[in-house]
Amino acid sequence: MEITILTTFPEMFAPLHTSILGRAEKAGHLSIREVDIRAYATNKHHNTDDAPFGGGAGMVMLAQPIVDAMRDVQGENFTGKRIYLTPKGRTLTQRDVERYAGESSLILLCGHYEGVDQRAIDLCIDEEVSIGDYVLTGGELAAMVLVDSVARLVPGVLGCENSAKDESFTSGLLEYPQYTRPREFEGLMVPEPLLNGNHREIAKWQFQESLYLTMKRRPEMASAYLEGRKLTRSQKKMVDEVFERLNLESETDPIEKKERVEQSDEKDHE
Amino acid sequence: MEITILTTFPEMFAPLHTSILGRAEKAGHLSIREVDIRAYATNKHHNTDDAPFGGGAGMVMLAQPIVDAMRDVQGENFTGKRIYLTPKGRTLTQRDVERYAGESSLILLCGHYEGVDQRAIDLCIDEEVSIGDYVLTGGELAAMVLVDSVARLVPGVLGCENSAKDESFTSGLLEYPQYTRPREFEGLMVPEPLLNGNHREIAKWQFQESLYLTMKRRPEMASAYLEGRKLTRSQKKMVDEVFERLNLESETDPIEKKERVEQSDEKDHE
Repeated sequence: MEITILTTFPEMFAPLHTSILGRAEKAGHLSIREVDIRAYATNKHHNTDDAPFGGGAGMVMLAQPIVDAMRDVQGENFTGKRIYLTPKGRTLTQRDVERYAGESSLILLCGHYEGVDQRAIDLCIDEEVSIGDYVLTGGELAAMVLVDSVARLVPGVLGCENSAKDESFTSGLLEYPQYTRPREFEGLMVPEPLLNGNHREIAKWQFQESLYLTMKRRPEMASAYLEGRKLTRSQKKMVDEVFERLNLESETDPIEKKERVEQSDEKDHE
Repeated sequence: MEITILTTFPEMFAPLHTSILGRAEKAGHLSIREVDIRAYATNKHHNTDDAPFGGGAGMVMLAQPIVDAMRDVQGENFTGKRIYLTPKGRTLTQRDVERYAGESSLILLCGHYEGVDQRAIDLCIDEEVSIGDYVLTGGELAAMVLVDSVARLVPGVLGCENSAKDESFTSGLLEYPQYTRPREFEGLMVPEPLLNGNHREIAKWQFQESLYLTMKRRPEMASAYLEGRKLTRSQKKMVDEVFERLNLESETDPIEKKERVEQSDEKDHE
């Protein structure tokens, strides 16, 4: 897989060439390269931005250097995806990440300041993507997040293939709490079911903790998970036990209950 | 403002010390420092992780080095927020970012592998935060995203104070398209209203383009924006014109309409 990043800050991408992705690159599983948009600016001072039409604060990135850089990078018969990272894009989800991981080639465009001239988007962008509902100083960190999430799905990149398998097992729910040695830390014990080696009890504990956490923090995600799912009788019993635990908590702790309702109200309005 | 990042990959944070944030740090507007968790590991080989109780692939980060690092960093009378970046946290929004920007001190904990021992979270974390519904190789990029989004709201960090004002004007909607010179690029013209210098017409065009884009890409965001808002008669007319444009498009382009409906269906299930 080949990922090219068009940016005016190529030096920001050093982290992508270290750690897990750095090793994967050396092993030939993927290639990540940065292309400096500034090198394509044909104006006298190699400017990459100018004041916006219609006035307003900030600067807008010029179409010409972006379009020329894109055409140079994509070559003749480009078949991958050209993605612009911007707060006005569609919100990235793991489903998109999986789709991008199936492409042989991605070109990412990082905006800065007040964004890029709309004509550059019209001429050479396939998808506009936002990594979340918050504002960043530029698209570089968003591009790194996208590269990292996609790259870890490329075969061979994660050393231990099992890590991906485990995730898809619980996919659709938040992960259960994890514990490692020692058994007791500052008076806090590892939960009993994880210690006795009974695989069925461990799986039950992990599923119930996942569901419990998801119900509390992301009720909309828990609903989506349960909706239309055909449960066996023993699975149904496990789910019911989690509901009971949540009900018991909200009865004994009215503040907790209030918080949960407020949070889910907030969600509705976002 | 003081931001401290607890990590086993301190070298990954170089990008935070360049560009806009690097300048802000030099000017004394904020301080960002990385603390290596490994330096606090008291075991013989300075390990920071071990196999999970209950089995399963991957490694879990030990509680001891994290808890000791946190206590050392936070000192006696810590009043800020201690945040753990994790896919199982609440989803970060600009509202959280604004809240964090009001703190004098933030300590961020980056997890890796299968996460950190739950007891470290129980003992020394105030909030668990996710930057979005996708999986990363570790918490480092998520921490950088949080730092970048928070830091740009700290007074003095963004060179031009106007940039923040402009955003809050259109806040609640996606940004309108931007254009800069030249007026014509590869046959594509800058839209007429942006060229004639009539401020009222410019503001109208920008508002309508913002609303149009938001209705198409983030219908739930557009609904939240319009809901309960008291519109003047001229504003109502502007909104109606956008609805008309969208209706016209879906009549003439049934595929486009179908896509829009499917997207909003997807949203409901996420």
